[in-house]
Order: sequence, then C-alpha cells, then structure tokens
Amino acid sequence: MVDIVILGTIGLDDIETPFGKVKEALGGSGTYAAYASSFFAKPGIVSIAGEDLPKRHIDVLKKRNISMDGIEIKGRNFRWGGFYEFDMNEAKTLKTELNSLADFDPELPADYKKAKYVFLGNVDPTIQLKVLGQIEKPELIVMDTMNFWISSRKEELIKAIKKVDVLVLNDSEARQLFGTVNLVNAADMALDLGPKAVIIKKGEHGALLFFREDGKRKHFSAPGYPLEVVKDPTGCGDSFGGGFIGHLAKTKNLSEANMRKAVIYGSVIASFNAEDFSLERQKKLTWGEIERRFHELREIREF
Amino acid sequence: MVDIVILGTIGLDDIETPFGKVKEALGGSGTYAAYASSFFAKPGIVSIAGEDLPKRHIDVLKKRNISMDGIEIKGRNFRWGGFYEFDMNEAKTLKTELNSLADFDPELPADYKKAKYVFLGNVDPTIQLKVLGQIEKPELIVMDTMNFWISSRKEELIKAIKKVDVLVLNDSEARQLFGTVNLVNAADMALDLGPKAVIIKKGEHGALLFFREDGKRKHFSAPGYPLEVVKDPTGCGDSFGGGFIGHLAKTKNLSEANMRKAVIYGSVIASFNAEDFSLERQKKLTWGEIERRFHELREIREF
Repeated sequence: MVDIVILGTIGLDDIETPFGKVKEALGGSGTYAAYASSFFAKPGIVSIAGEDLPKRHIDVLKKRNISMDGIEIKGRNFRWGGFYEFDMNEAKTLKTELNSLADFDPELPADYKKAKYVFLGNVDPTIQLKVLGQIEKPELIVMDTMNFWISSRKEELIKAIKKVDVLVLNDSEARQLFGTVNLVNAADMALDLGPKAVIIKKGEHGALLFFREDGKRKHFSAPGYPLEVVKDPTGCGDSFGGGFIGHLAKTKNLSEANMRKAVIYGSVIASFNAEDFSLERQKKLTWGEIERRFHELREIREF
Repeated sequence: MVDIVILGTIGLDDIETPFGKVKEALGGSGTYAAYASSFFAKPGIVSIAGEDLPKRHIDVLKKRNISMDGIEIKGRNFRWGGFYEFDMNEAKTLKTELNSLADFDPELPADYKKAKYVFLGNVDPTIQLKVLGQIEKPELIVMDTMNFWISSRKEELIKAIKKVDVLVLNDSEARQLFGTVNLVNAADMALDLGPKAVIIKKGEHGALLFFREDGKRKHFSAPGYPLEVVKDPTGCGDSFGGGFIGHLAKTKNLSEANMRKAVIYGSVIASFNAEDFSLERQKKLTWGEIERRFHELREIREF
C-alpha cells in the first residue's frame, strides 16, 4: 500500500553549472518528488521509463521506501539537457527528447487507486487529469506545473487546477499564468479557480502559502535557507513538492498550521537538493539533518 | 537636540509608474529616511536644497518632528526623473540634474555633532565620510549606498564601509559590489570589511540581516509584506533605513534581537511608502497602523 501517488517524469539529464557537469544523471519531476517524499512516507511513482534507463538509477529508487509498480518500461527514456549560467536562477534548455514519454498513458496499479495523497508533478495537464480520474477517494491533491504547459496547454491546465486542493508553482509561472506581476493578486486569482491553497515558490527567497478562510486571504511567508553553495538547482521545485506532501501524508493533518510546517519541510529538502548534482545530496541526507535545518529556519525568522 | 543625523538628498522628482505620474514631487534619500525615522525619534537632515524648492515641500518636513538646521539653501534644487515599467522592480532614470548638490560641502550644526545615531544616506561616499568626520562620539553609524557609487567611486565607498557599524544595500548592489551572485557570500565579504552587521534589502522578498558573533555567521530573514497595490516604490529603500535607525535610536538597544525588530520596523515603513507616490502615504500614516503591520509580519511567518 502506498501513502502517496506521485506522478512525474523519470529523466536522464545532462546538466552543466558553474560548479561542474553530469551526463545521463538520474532526474525528472517524478524522481525528485518521490525521493523527497520518501523521507516522510511511502510514495509510489506513476511514470514511464525507457529500456535504456541504467540499472544503477533504478537501484537508487529501489533502495528507498519507494514503490516502482506504477512505472512502465518502454522504448527509449525521456532525456533533458540544460545548463545554468552564473546567476543559477533559470535553467536554459539545450535539448528535450520526449521519447517514450510521448506515448505515456498511465494505468494505475490497484493499490495506488486507493491512495489518499496525490502529487501531480510537472507533466502534461491531460496526463495529470488522467491520473486524478483513477484515484478513488483522494483526501489531498497537490499539483505542480511549469511555464511550458502554461504557454502550450493553458485551457487543459486551468481544468486541472479546478480539481486540485493545492496548486504549486514558481513566481514567474504565477505571473505568467495570471497576467500580473503582483504575487498577491496572482494568488487571489488562483484561489478563485477553486484550490484551497496556493504555494508560490521563490527559489532563494523562500515560498509563499496563500489560503482563503471565510472569504479572507491568509498568508504564510517561508524564508529561504541561506545556502553558501548552490551546485545545481535542478529538481528543487519537485523536491519541495515531495517534502510538502510527504509531511502532510505522514501527519495526516491538513490544518493551516500543519500546512505551514509542510512548506518548511519542503523548503528544507529543496535546499539540501541544491547542494549537489542529481540526487547526490538527498542520497546522503539524514533525518537529523532535516530536523536541524527545520529548526534553523525557525531561528532565522524569529523577532 | 536631534536623536539621529540623517545625511541624504532633498529632491524634486518627476515619476511615472503604471499607476500614475507626479511632477516636482518631494523626494530624495534624506527626505524619505528622515520622514520614516521621525515616527520613532527626532531626526535632523544634513542636505542641500535649492531656492526653487516649493514652500509646500518644506512645510511637509517642518510639520513633523524633523530638524531642518542642517539644510543649506543654494541655487537650483537637485532634480531626478524616472519611470517604472510593469514589473516595478527597478527605476529607469530619465534625468539626473545635480544642480546645487554638485557643490554640497556639509558643515554640521553644533548640536548635530553630538548626535549618537547617524544615517549616511545614499550620496557620494566622499560626502558620507565628511559628515562622519564631524560627529563627535557616534554610537551607531548606518550607511546606505547604491549602484551608481559602486561603479563610479568604489575605492572611496570601501573606505566609508570600513568606518560604519551597519551597511545597508539591496541585493543587486550586494552582488555587484562583491562580485558574487550568492548573497550569503556577499554578506560575509561585507562583514570582512568591518561592519558589525549587513542588511541586504530584497524589495518584495523582504530583507536579510547578517551578523558575526565569535567568528560565526548569524542570519535573520525578514519577510516581505504582501502588498496588493504598489503604486510607486521610490524611496522605499531610504524609508527602510529611516525606520531601521529610528527604532534603534528610540529604544537605545543595539542587541541582535532588537536589530531584528528594527529591520521589521524598517520593512513596515517601506511597505506603506510603496502604497502611494512621494510621501503621500507616510503623511497619513499612524502609529497604530505601524504596530498592526508589525504584528501582521510576525503572524505571516509563524510555523
């Protein structure tokens, strides 16, 4: 039985940053989100991978408490290549080979359909809706998206947003989707579509959580963790989402107060993820380190 | 007797934003910082103004508890013109007429020389050093600067930074001055120069305060206030500085804990300042509103 269904890609990434480069590294939104959530609860990945996905990558996931039953193996693996310039703020894409991802038509294993927590990671909104339709009685649906779907599949994306409890996106995506520079206005427009909460990720500047209660907007501002070294930001957004839903699935408490804590846990995992390439830092990460950074984030915002 | 000496410009600003425009509005780093600090203590401005500075502008300052004895009147007033585009993040300068500011050679009134709190607002670092040299026994020197001096007067600027207790600058200025994108590294380099604390202002993303204690870096992250409407960000940085030193001069407590509170008071005044052009919002601002927003900022970062 899985606690969380995680939809997303499993990728083979070629990445270059000012701190180094990797070839055919394990990546993808599903990989990062599932790995991050596995510190808290048992995730099952819904994805498609290629026959060329190296065994060493499969082993990284298998060694964790992650179900692989929802992964179909077919053809050649999805591949992405990109680089980060000096400011590390935005990945510049060099190549996107969809390969088997182009034929992805997910069919969930029986026990996945009974999961209560669902994370619809960054893939085509049509696929997000297909997975959602197979979950029998979800208690919490969290959805992430990105600029590519906002430009190319906006109508379908809005349809999906209307069905979820928590929308997660980054600041530039929020501005793009709602046509405003003001993030408070963007959050209000997102809440108008139906979600109970909206999270706007701001990279090094932390994250904002917006709620509506009795028609009144509520707001939580999570600080960014002051990292001295950012080696590779790839997967930080997905890791944030995984940590966020992971904490909620573990504690089974959807109160505003607990969602605030979940945002902090998401930020903690994301901050560790940026310290090295691929999943290298998360692979070494201990629960003690997570708790220490959680408390550090409490300390740095105290006044 | 003044509590705080505030060095800065008194300007006549032509400003256009997506929300309107003003002509010959009261502006300048000295004006904003002094007005903001006057909610907390008695500031005295050190500046030069022109004979063409309208009486209605002088009256705005005179009506507050602000000493004007350090203002020299001479020739034509300093004028600045600029506009903000849709994203409101950065002012684009259309004109800078130094006029009488070019001959500014400050001579402090006797009682200013005895002040304990000094705010060296954004002017030529040579002038900042000249004012500092006239203060007999300062207890706290806070210094603000901007990109223009970083490009054109870096050596003099570094000389000034070495003599101050708190350096205030914004994120892009910190990156420019220390040649790094990482703000934690920039703060470390700033602390290496001598200041006890460094504040990096991040606009809507809040502000960071860095300290060093027994060789260990301490860090405070102040949230940004979630403004629904930003009409004109001009003077927000100076207002932040004024609110920051104002709270410290009022409470006479330079502990780290109280500096954190001072950062929040600075953020509160700056957030109000952005809600209207020139000093319009600050002119209507009450102490009750300041305290309410201070507590709101505590509430939005709670977890």
